[in-house]
Amino acid sequence: MRTSIATVCLSGTLEDRLDAAAGAGFDGVEIFENDLVASVSSPEAIRQRVADLGLRIDLYQPFRDAEGAPPERFATVERRFRAKLDLMARLGADTVLICSSVAPDTVDDDALAAAQLRRLAEMADERGMRIAYEALAWGRFVSTWEHSWEIVRHAEHPALGLCLDSFHVLSRTDAYGKIAGLPGDRIFFLQLADAPRLDMDVLQWSRHHRLFPLQGRLDLAGFTQSVLDAGYRGPLSLEVFNDVFRQADPHRTAVDARRSLIALAGTLTRPAGPSETRPAGSRETRPAGPCETLTPAPALDGIAFVELGVDAETGPELDNLLRALGFAHTGQHRSKAVQLWEQGSARILLNSGAPRPAEGEAAIRAFALESTDPAASARRAAELLAEPLPRRRRQSEADLTAVSAPDGTEIFFCRGDYWLDDFLPTGETRTRETGITAIDHLSLAQPFDRYDEAALFYRSVLGLTDDEAGEFAAPFGLVRTLAVRNANRRVRLALSVPLLRRGDWAPAVPHPQSLTLLTDDLARTAAALETVPIPGNYYDDLDARTDLPPELRDTVRKLGALYDSDEHGQYLQLFTPVLGHRVFIEIVQRIGGYRGYGFANDPVRMAAHRAQRLVSRA
Amino acid sequence: MRTSIATVCLSGTLEDRLDAAAGAGFDGVEIFENDLVASVSSPEAIRQRVADLGLRIDLYQPFRDAEGAPPERFATVERRFRAKLDLMARLGADTVLICSSVAPDTVDDDALAAAQLRRLAEMADERGMRIAYEALAWGRFVSTWEHSWEIVRHAEHPALGLCLDSFHVLSRTDAYGKIAGLPGDRIFFLQLADAPRLDMDVLQWSRHHRLFPLQGRLDLAGFTQSVLDAGYRGPLSLEVFNDVFRQADPHRTAVDARRSLIALAGTLTRPAGPSETRPAGSRETRPAGPCETLTPAPALDGIAFVELGVDAETGPELDNLLRALGFAHTGQHRSKAVQLWEQGSARILLNSGAPRPAEGEAAIRAFALESTDPAASARRAAELLAEPLPRRRRQSEADLTAVSAPDGTEIFFCRGDYWLDDFLPTGETRTRETGITAIDHLSLAQPFDRYDEAALFYRSVLGLTDDEAGEFAAPFGLVRTLAVRNANRRVRLALSVPLLRRGDWAPAVPHPQSLTLLTDDLARTAAALETVPIPGNYYDDLDARTDLPPELRDTVRKLGALYDSDEHGQYLQLFTPVLGHRVFIEIVQRIGGYRGYGFANDPVRMAAHRAQRLVSRA
Repeated sequence: MRTSIATVCLSGTLEDRLDAAAGAGFDGVEIFENDLVASVSSPEAIRQRVADLGLRIDLYQPFRDAEGAPPERFATVERRFRAKLDLMARLGADTVLICSSVAPDTVDDDALAAAQLRRLAEMADERGMRIAYEALAWGRFVSTWEHSWEIVRHAEHPALGLCLDSFHVLSRTDAYGKIAGLPGDRIFFLQLADAPRLDMDVLQWSRHHRLFPLQGRLDLAGFTQSVLDAGYRGPLSLEVFNDVFRQADPHRTAVDARRSLIALAGTLTRPAGPSETRPAGSRETRPAGPCETLTPAPALDGIAFVELGVDAETGPELDNLLRALGFAHTGQHRSKAVQLWEQGSARILLNSGAPRPAEGEAAIRAFALESTDPAASARRAAELLAEPLPRRRRQSEADLTAVSAPDGTEIFFCRGDYWLDDFLPTGETRTRETGITAIDHLSLAQPFDRYDEAALFYRSVLGLTDDEAGEFAAPFGLVRTLAVRNANRRVRLALSVPLLRRGDWAPAVPHPQSLTLLTDDLARTAAALETVPIPGNYYDDLDARTDLPPELRDTVRKLGALYDSDEHGQYLQLFTPVLGHRVFIEIVQRIGGYRGYGFANDPVRMAAHRAQRLVSRA
Repeated sequence: MRTSIATVCLSGTLEDRLDAAAGAGFDGVEIFENDLVASVSSPEAIRQRVADLGLRIDLYQPFRDAEGAPPERFATVERRFRAKLDLMARLGADTVLICSSVAPDTVDDDALAAAQLRRLAEMADERGMRIAYEALAWGRFVSTWEHSWEIVRHAEHPALGLCLDSFHVLSRTDAYGKIAGLPGDRIFFLQLADAPRLDMDVLQWSRHHRLFPLQGRLDLAGFTQSVLDAGYRGPLSLEVFNDVFRQADPHRTAVDARRSLIALAGTLTRPAGPSETRPAGSRETRPAGPCETLTPAPALDGIAFVELGVDAETGPELDNLLRALGFAHTGQHRSKAVQLWEQGSARILLNSGAPRPAEGEAAIRAFALESTDPAASARRAAELLAEPLPRRRRQSEADLTAVSAPDGTEIFFCRGDYWLDDFLPTGETRTRETGITAIDHLSLAQPFDRYDEAALFYRSVLGLTDDEAGEFAAPFGLVRTLAVRNANRRVRLALSVPLLRRGDWAPAVPHPQSLTLLTDDLARTAAALETVPIPGNYYDDLDARTDLPPELRDTVRKLGALYDSDEHGQYLQLFTPVLGHRVFIEIVQRIGGYRGYGFANDPVRMAAHRAQRLVSRA
């Protein structure tokens, strides 16, 4: 299945964008007119560059305000269209997108619109070109795919077909099913964009908030399947207007973009029908089957270990902290400066051998996931463009397959404890029980402009599903959170980002990562360590807004814990100071099946961390 | 007139926010509950700090989901309310805001709502406190000020009054006039927020996009006047939820905030009526008059000079450029390293004596405006919290009054040419005429998070009005622009900002400032200097989309100019390379009264600058 991307999705000069598209493995591009107009390269030079990069120009777009023009204006439309056909010939493009008119003088007359489009199709046909006509969701009179299809059918010209755009369709309706009944060869082009569900003006929604497929909440999988069911065999092409992507590194965005199409294609099936590349007149058919062979995500069953980078400052702090929590330093890596610490089923590696991370860089360097098929997990990750990590395997060391997440975190896949053989026993045993039973979840702070990329990566590569999502007012700005989890909730990741890139005012690292440990006895755990004090105001408010049994209320206040509840149960949280300004450890107890993450308490936690830092400085 | 600000408008810890409010000169604050709950300071400590800072707590807010509670839930409401009254007593606050219920179980029964609010008012009254009841625009059943007033009237308790919030009213209706007929003493509180006109879910609009008064498009002046006309005499208080302000330096935001209230108050008149501080029973009246005495903005009549900072790199470049443009170095400052260059009525100062500006800092250090009353202009600026610049006047030097804009640009006010006496004539005279007649406008790039602040500053301090505004897709991200101008269009400033803080990908200084000179003969000016080449694609597109007379079309292409038009005329633009990565000079010709700024051409200009920089590096 061919993949394509509109240049408007990416940032930089037109050349930057083409390079990025090719680098990410796209087969083709849509040339967006404004990007070409601003380019210093001639159409011929762009054609050459596209060819050199192994790309193809799948579409030239958009041509506006064509159909429904008052007859006296139509001569101007023809002149303008002829100029664009000349340009397309120079570019080597053979399909042009005409989007439905928005001009105030547009005439509401389908017969006129059809006749005019037919005339333009004749002009295109003479040049061996064709027109894909698209209904903009905010078109003056034509704003639904059904209406655009009526006009195309009425115009009845072989060089005139439909362009379907998932955003324009799904922003207006969920009833797209009839698309499957269209004659597939009259769908000339398919543009894909996802979006969050926003209740706002559709033009502004479209211009600023589009996302790549599976990053938003539109039903991209169902929609795309309908178009394939109709018999469409052209490229899956992305057309995403997004404020963040427009200013981000285009190479990175292009990889994110193509990952979204690979993940989407993995959900699609190709109906039985004529094969894709057939000589004219051939009637060869293929059986129905998956569209692309994407390795299914193997089931996961827990976080085998978390690796923290430590340095001269944080190493001793973490040593003390882990010991207080009842962890024992049970193993030392055979060849690396890595310590294994264990308590309950929680395993933490402290790596002091890695280069000291830069300011603001992640402290959680890596984590390992229990997979029912580690090789398949790694294969799926690679298929989804996760960067494979070089295996630095020495003789007698476990062969852990690993990939790198976009945020730099390394993800290992393992099955069972064979990797423990890499560690020489220190002889220390876990004696001091403090209630810690397991790793509950990891909180991976992301830069403001990588929220959607990170969410798609963790969802698609690891096969995780969305859990709790939220937005809250932290002391230094709004923060968005999204938790993703596996089926049995033993793998949980919480992603969080500031809503905007912060100004100089906010603390340099306002948003550290955290490792959350599960305890079955918070009181016992709390007795073992010094946690960050929670202000009395919090408890006064908690007492005012909840009606906890007196015993629980006293416990929460006495322990200095944060409290949350959901329909399943209750949640108590404690946390340590931020170590080295980059990571803290949270201890939680889940009572009666509570499923959340206590996100609503994050502002209080952040303010408490801030206050403690100010105190420790003073 | 007292001014107040809700802590939620600002960033940082509660203490940071209080300090900032006091620093900007506010009289009071609204304590936002979440800010208090997260604070490590006790209510008593906050009360003390507020007092030490000379502030007053004008409101505690919000108390939610009180009225219309099902009777079985109301006991919980009472318990919660009692806890908050206790808290208010500790804080020393005497007014609490209750906003209309949004809870799904709310009962649609005005009599019940009134009875419940009356009960809560009795509880407050016992403590010497009172309730300001506010209709949220998205309240479950009570969402208009009329409805909230009906319930307050029905409840009939002296400790229960209205809170009016400009956003909640104006986001729903422009028909606020009847507010003037309310009994003013039943309006217990007035919250002010402006906003851009956005067609979106009102809750999201309110949570993310509120602005300070006169920064948006709501009719704050008319609304506030109506409330004063009703007889309200409490503080003007700001309650603004804004993604940018929430993460910006609170000291700066607080100054911006208070400036908005001062500018707003300057538009208001106080109706005749009882004086503000009156003993009970007193019937003393005051005559109608302005609410606050803000010096009216004197008329402006042009840009007297622009001062550019130059260094060893840019100095010689600018020398050559100005000379090519026909400017003559006519004067040398008596005591500073400042040169005066003149051509037509355009005067440019080159200052090589100032400290070298930091990367990304403005190149346009200062500009001077012709004012009919320079002293009054400066007085108004100071009243609006513009930072006055120290006068570094030496004997026999002109006493130019000056203030500093938030972006650091220095603004001088002058009348006539007396300041020219500071310059010793060099003997050079303007011999080479190249058509330049005047300074057309200045483009002042702003950081992404200071757009609204800058717009308010230039509008209010200089008495400028909004001209063209736009948003366009530049090669490295979206850019917003706003032009402001004086009455006769001889003072024009174009503000522009990236929509987001840029990532590492975008060039370090993607958005230089510019000085635009007006010519009456672009061909003559163009012949004199080397301009940045405009790509052929631009002209091909221009030919396709316009139908220019052949002569003009040829001229535009031959000159390498950009072209724009409006209903009044046409516009031709040329520009130089970016000097020192921070400033370029643009030459424009306005034909037949064109009024715009050619913003639509900015992406092409930016791409051309980018291409030239890449070439000059290669």
